[in-house]
Amino acid sequence: MIVTLFGESHGSAIGAVLDGMTPGIEIDEAFIARQLCKRRGQSNISTSRRESDEFRILSGVFNGRTTGTPITFLIENIDKKSGDYADLKCVPRPSHADYTAQCKYHGFQDYRGGGHFSGRITAGIVAAGSVCLSALRKKGILIGSHILSCGTIRDRGFEDFIQDISILDDLSLPVLSDERRREIEANIEKLRSEGNSIGGTIQTVITGLPAGVGEPWFDTLEGMIAKAVFSIPAVKGIEFGAGFSFSGMSGTEANDPFVFKDGSVITKTNNNGGINGGITNGMPVLFNTAVKPTPSIYKEQRTVDLSSGRNTSLIIEGRHDPAIVHRAAVVVDSITAIVVCDLLLGRYGTDYLRSDI
Amino acid sequence: MIVTLFGESHGSAIGAVLDGMTPGIEIDEAFIARQLCKRRGQSNISTSRRESDEFRILSGVFNGRTTGTPITFLIENIDKKSGDYADLKCVPRPSHADYTAQCKYHGFQDYRGGGHFSGRITAGIVAAGSVCLSALRKKGILIGSHILSCGTIRDRGFEDFIQDISILDDLSLPVLSDERRREIEANIEKLRSEGNSIGGTIQTVITGLPAGVGEPWFDTLEGMIAKAVFSIPAVKGIEFGAGFSFSGMSGTEANDPFVFKDGSVITKTNNNGGINGGITNGMPVLFNTAVKPTPSIYKEQRTVDLSSGRNTSLIIEGRHDPAIVHRAAVVVDSITAIVVCDLLLGRYGTDYLRSDI
Amino acid sequence: MIVTLFGESHGSAIGAVLDGMTPGIEIDEAFIARQLCKRRGQSNISTSRRESDEFRILSGVFNGRTTGTPITFLIENIDKKSGDYADLKCVPRPSHADYTAQCKYHGFQDYRGGGHFSGRITAGIVAAGSVCLSALRKKGILIGSHILSCGTIRDRGFEDFIQDISILDDLSLPVLSDERRREIEANIEKLRSEGNSIGGTIQTVITGLPAGVGEPWFDTLEGMIAKAVFSIPAVKGIEFGAGFSFSGMSGTEANDPFVFKDGSVITKTNNNGGINGGITNGMPVLFNTAVKPTPSIYKEQRTVDLSSGRNTSLIIEGRHDPAIVHRAAVVVDSITAIVVCDLLLGRYGTDYLRSDI
Amino acid sequence: MIVTLFGESHGSAIGAVLDGMTPGIEIDEAFIARQLCKRRGQSNISTSRRESDEFRILSGVFNGRTTGTPITFLIENIDKKSGDYADLKCVPRPSHADYTAQCKYHGFQDYRGGGHFSGRITAGIVAAGSVCLSALRKKGILIGSHILSCGTIRDRGFEDFIQDISILDDLSLPVLSDERRREIEANIEKLRSEGNSIGGTIQTVITGLPAGVGEPWFDTLEGMIAKAVFSIPAVKGIEFGAGFSFSGMSGTEANDPFVFKDGSVITKTNNNGGINGGITNGMPVLFNTAVKPTPSIYKEQRTVDLSSGRNTSLIIEGRHDPAIVHRAAVVVDSITAIVVCDLLLGRYGTDYLRSDI
Repeated sequence: MIVTLFGESHGSAIGAVLDGMTPGIEIDEAFIARQLCKRRGQSNISTSRRESDEFRILSGVFNGRTTGTPITFLIENIDKKSGDYADLKCVPRPSHADYTAQCKYHGFQDYRGGGHFSGRITAGIVAAGSVCLSALRKKGILIGSHILSCGTIRDRGFEDFIQDISILDDLSLPVLSDERRREIEANIEKLRSEGNSIGGTIQTVITGLPAGVGEPWFDTLEGMIAKAVFSIPAVKGIEFGAGFSFSGMSGTEANDPFVFKDGSVITKTNNNGGINGGITNGMPVLFNTAVKPTPSIYKEQRTVDLSSGRNTSLIIEGRHDPAIVHRAAVVVDSITAIVVCDLLLGRYGTDYLRSDI
Repeated sequence: MIVTLFGESHGSAIGAVLDGMTPGIEIDEAFIARQLCKRRGQSNISTSRRESDEFRILSGVFNGRTTGTPITFLIENIDKKSGDYADLKCVPRPSHADYTAQCKYHGFQDYRGGGHFSGRITAGIVAAGSVCLSALRKKGILIGSHILSCGTIRDRGFEDFIQDISILDDLSLPVLSDERRREIEANIEKLRSEGNSIGGTIQTVITGLPAGVGEPWFDTLEGMIAKAVFSIPAVKGIEFGAGFSFSGMSGTEANDPFVFKDGSVITKTNNNGGINGGITNGMPVLFNTAVKPTPSIYKEQRTVDLSSGRNTSLIIEGRHDPAIVHRAAVVVDSITAIVVCDLLLGRYGTDYLRSDI
Repeated sequence: MIVTLFGESHGSAIGAVLDGMTPGIEIDEAFIARQLCKRRGQSNISTSRRESDEFRILSGVFNGRTTGTPITFLIENIDKKSGDYADLKCVPRPSHADYTAQCKYHGFQDYRGGGHFSGRITAGIVAAGSVCLSALRKKGILIGSHILSCGTIRDRGFEDFIQDISILDDLSLPVLSDERRREIEANIEKLRSEGNSIGGTIQTVITGLPAGVGEPWFDTLEGMIAKAVFSIPAVKGIEFGAGFSFSGMSGTEANDPFVFKDGSVITKTNNNGGINGGITNGMPVLFNTAVKPTPSIYKEQRTVDLSSGRNTSLIIEGRHDPAIVHRAAVVVDSITAIVVCDLLLGRYGTDYLRSDI
Repeated sequence: MIVTLFGESHGSAIGAVLDGMTPGIEIDEAFIARQLCKRRGQSNISTSRRESDEFRILSGVFNGRTTGTPITFLIENIDKKSGDYADLKCVPRPSHADYTAQCKYHGFQDYRGGGHFSGRITAGIVAAGSVCLSALRKKGILIGSHILSCGTIRDRGFEDFIQDISILDDLSLPVLSDERRREIEANIEKLRSEGNSIGGTIQTVITGLPAGVGEPWFDTLEGMIAKAVFSIPAVKGIEFGAGFSFSGMSGTEANDPFVFKDGSVITKTNNNGGINGGITNGMPVLFNTAVKPTPSIYKEQRTVDLSSGRNTSLIIEGRHDPAIVHRAAVVVDSITAIVVCDLLLGRYGTDYLRSDI
C-alpha cells in the first residue's frame, strides 16, 4: 500500500492518494469527516484558521465501496491568508522547516504558511487512514491514542483497551481521565494567552493484530511504525513497550513470560509492547510518541535574514496552535492504521481486509 | 543503496550484500576487522562464543576499491554448538523472537540460536557499514556513539564532537568518562555473575552533514534512521535532539534560534538534533537509542511448551551477554552510516562519495 | 521519481501525481495542453468522446516553477455517458480488461467504460510526462515518436533526429512521410466506416542522453522503459535497436564498431539502439513498440455472460477509436520522458534537471 | 520477493540472494544442478570455460526446506584466466558492456571478462529461479522455453504445453522438433568454426496461472516480465501473444472471444498471450524474446583505444559462445519464475506457495 500526500498550505488544494487497498471496503464518509474534525481540534485550544475540510473522493470508490484502485482525497484550500507569511523565505521561523526547505529546494519551495511542510497536509493522512481504520475495525483490529502527558500533567494509562478506545472515539481532546482532560485543556488555554506553546506525549495501542506480522531485518513492525510516525510534524521520539525505561531494568524485570490462557499463548507482562524480533506476538502493540511544542509562538525570536546575511528577530503573526499533541493523536492513529494495513496485505494478500468473505 | 543480510546463527555462514555504493571508494580491511571486533565486545563482559569473524569480500571490490557493483561480505560460522538450542522451537525463550518466528514461519525457521534473528547477523551490518563510515569520513562526515546510560550509571554527554568521536574510536567499551566506563564495566560483570542482564541507552552524533538532506513526507531523516535502528535486536526506542524531554518544554524553551556564525547559519541551541521538518539544518544530528536488557538470562523463567500446549519453565544454557548496549553502539554507527550514504547518494547522485574528484 | 495515476473513465475526475521532480523547472501550461490535445487525437479518426481535458495543477508548482514537492494534475470528467456501459461487468468485451478486472477485484471495480483501465487514464501520463519532456529539452535531451507502421503501410525511418522530432512536434498524426501520413489517415477512416480497427508500431528515439545511464542487473534502460511502456493499454511488444531482426543476424553483421568522431566515442552502426549491457553508450536510444488494434469494434463478437454462466454475443456501442497507434505515440514519448528523468535524477542527483545553474 | 545478484566473472565467487520465498518449500539440489548445467550449455556449441558451477546454499534452508529468510547461493570461480582480458578497460569490445561500464564506473569496474556484466552472473538467476520453478510446479504452474528460431531455422510452435514442457526438461538444446534441433546445432557448430556467432528467438509459456494476477498501471504482468527478461545479457526484444504481428491485424482478427469450457471462462484464440489490461485471464501466458548474436567473435573488429584517444582494431581471444540463445532459454525460465512468484506472493500473501497446506 502506498500513500502519496500532495499540496501546500496556501496552494489551491491538498490531498492524498491511497493505492493498494483491498476492494470492497465500505467507505464511511461521516467517519472520515469526524476524524478530519478531530484533526482540526476544538476551537478554544487550536488554530483559528477556519477550514471546514470538506473533502471529495475523486477516484477508487464506486457504489460506496473501494474498487481496489487508487483512492484520491481532495480538500480545497478556502481560508488562506498568504499575506501573513510574506517574508518566511528570507527570515525563517526557528524550529520550523522554512530554513531546511530553502536549503533543499533552493528558494523554489512554496514558503507560504510552511507550504508542503505545513501540519495542514496531515489532513490527507487522516482521510486515507480513516479508510484503513474502518477496514481494520471490521477485522477486529482497533487502534487508539490518548495524550499520555502534556507539560507536567499526565493522563492515566490504558486499562481496558477496547473500552478506552471507545471512550476516545467520542473525545475531541483525547485524555482518558476527565480530570486530567480539564487540566490539560486549561493549561493549553493558559499557554495560548501567554503566546507560548507546550509539548506532550501520545500513547497508542493496537489490539487484535495476529501474531507473526513484521519482516526481518529492516521492515520490523517497530521500524515501519516509527518511520511513518516521524513523518508527522513535531514528532521527535518513539518508544515501544517499556521503551526508554528498559535502560534501567534487569533481564528478570524486563522479560515477558509466556503462558497459555484459554488455549492461546499470551505474555504475563507486556514490556515488549507486543513485539519480539520486530514481529507481533499477539499481545497489544503499545507505543509512545514524543511531540515537541508548536514552534510558532507569539514572542520575539532571534533568527537570520538570508537575503542580507544578517541576524535579525521575528515576531510570528497569523493563526497558530498553543499545542499540537491533541491534534496529532488522530494523525498517529491514522498513519498507524495505514502501516498496519500495508503489513497485513503484504503478509496475507491483497484481499485480506475484505469483510464480505 | 540496498543492504541485504543473510545467514543464521548456526548455519554455515552469515553475511551481507551492499548494493549501490559509489565506485572508487578505498576498502580498509583492517578497519572493517576492528569494527567487527568492537561488535564482538571485550571478553569479560560479552558472550563467550569465540568467533574470529574472519570475513571475505566476494565481490564488488577490485584493486582495493569499490567497483560500484554489489559488495558481498561473507563470514563463515565456525564455533557453533547447536545442541545448546535443541528445544527452542517448542519452548520459546521469553522476550526473544523464538515464538514470533514460529508464528511467522510455521516451524520451518532455523531456530538454533535464534537463527536469522540472532544478534550475530549484525556482523553483516557492521561490515557493510564500515565501508560507508570510511567513505563518509573522507567527505568530512563523522559518526560516533557512546553508552549514555547503563542501568543507573550515566556517561557525560558529548562535548567536542570530533575529539569525542576520536576517543570512542579507540575504546572497546564506548563510554566517554573514564570513571563511568569502569563503573559500567563493573556493573555488567556483576550482572553476569548473577546470571542477570541490564539495559541501557546509546547516544549518537553525526557531524558534517550538509543542510537539505531528508525527504518529505515519509523519508524524513528521523524516520529513515529510526527504521534502520529498530532493525537492531533489543532496540525499543529512539529520540532525536531533546526527544521525550520536549513533552515538558514550552515553545520558548524548545525553539532553536538561528544565527550567523562565520558566514554560516547555525542554531544557538540544538534541541531539534540538527533536523527540522525531517531535513538536516547543518547542525550535528543527535539521537538516543533505548536498548533493552539481553533477554537471555540464567534464571528459571516461565514459558510455554508449544508441542504439549502446557505451561512450563526454562533455564537457558549456552553463551550469552549480560548486556548488549556496548556491542550495539558500533551497530548503530554502522547502520546510521548506511542510511546517511543512501540519502546522500539519492540527493546528490551516485558519484557523490568519490574522494578522487 | 514516482508517478501515481488515479481515476476512472466515468468517475468524477482523473489525474496524476508526479513526485520527485527537480525544483525550479518552468511549467509550460500551453505545452501540456498541446500534448493532451495530441493524445485525444484528431477528430476524424479518433473517439467521438468530446473532452477538452482542461487540467488544473493542484500542487507542487509555485510562481510558474516546480517546487520539488508532488505535482498534482487534475482533469475533471465532463462528457461521460455511463449508460453505454451498463452490462460490461457481466458481459466482458473480448480483449479488454473487463474480465480480468472482474477476476482481480471481485466485481467491486468501476466497470463503466473500462474504469481505471480506460485509455483515458493516459491523460495523466501525458500531463506528468510533459513536465519531464520540457525539463529534458533544456538539458539537450529530445524524445520523439512516429508511427512506423499501421497495417501494411510503413513510414520512412528517422533520418535527421533533431529535425524529425521538430517535424513531429507539429503533427497531430505523427507520420514523417507526408504521403504515408495521408495513406494511414485514409486507412484508419476506412476501418472506422467498416466498424473495424487496426494495429501498428511506433518508433521512438531519445537523443542527447549521456553515456553511463542504466543500472545492472535489473534496472537496465531497456527494462525500465519496457516496464513503463507496457503500462500503456494495447502495447504488446517492444524491441530496442535491431530488436527481433537480431535473430537472423551473425555477430559480424550485428556488432557496432566503436570509432572516435570529433573527440567523442561513437559507434559506426547503431544496431544496439544506444544501449550496451543495459546502459547508454551515448548514441541515440531507439526502440519500437507494437500496438494492437483497438479491441472495441462494431461487429457482433462472442463472449460470455458471467451472471448466467452461458455463452452469448455482444455488439459494442458508444464511442471508440478505429486505431490507437496515433494516440499512443505521445503517451510513449511521455512515459519515456518520465523514465529517463527518473534514471538521470537517480544517477546524478535530484537537482540535475535544473536549468538555472 | 527480491533477488540480489553479486559477483564478477573473474572475481573470487558469484552468487545470488533470494529474499521473500515462502517457508517450507522443498529444496531439490539435483534439480538446481541440472538447471545450472543447462545454462552452461552442451560442450560442442558452448564456451569452453570449464566450470562445474558447484554451488553452496549458505543460508535460508534448514532441514531441506526454505525457512522464509534470505536464501544465499554461492558459486566459487575456479577456472578463470584473467590474462585473456587484460586490455578490455582501454580497448572495449564492440557491442559488449566494456565501454558503458567504463562510462558508468569511471574505470573502477572489474573489467576482466566483462566483470559484473558477464553472462556468467546469470548462474545466480538460474539457482534462485530453480527454487521458484519447483515451488510453482507444486502449485500446478509450469514454465518452459524453446528456441523458436536461430538464424533462419525455425522450430515448431508449442502444441501440447504440458507435454512439450516435459520434453524440454530433458533437452540440453531446447528445440521441440528433432530435425530442427539437429539443424540448429549444426548451424551453431558451423558458425563456431567460422569464428562468427548467430542470434535467435526464444518462446516461453507459463501455464496454470490463476486469472487476476498483475497490477495496474505500472506493474503489469507484461511489464514485470519484460523488465526482468531485459536483464539477461543479449536480450533486445520481447513480445506477448501475437506481439509485433498485431500491427498488421484488424480488430476482428485480433480479438480473442470468450467462451465457457467445462464451466471455466477461456478464450477461443490466444492472441493476447493470456493477458488483458496487464492482468492474467487464465489462458497460458505466451511471449517471445529476441536474443542478439554473441558479440564476442574471432574476427578483427574496429574499436577505440580510450587511453590514447585513437581508433584501433581488436581480435578477441579467450573462450566464447557462437550462440547464446540456447543457454539463455533456461535463464528466461528462471527469471520468469521469480517474477511470477513475486506477483503471486504479493497478490495472495507470503504463504501462498506452501505445498504442505
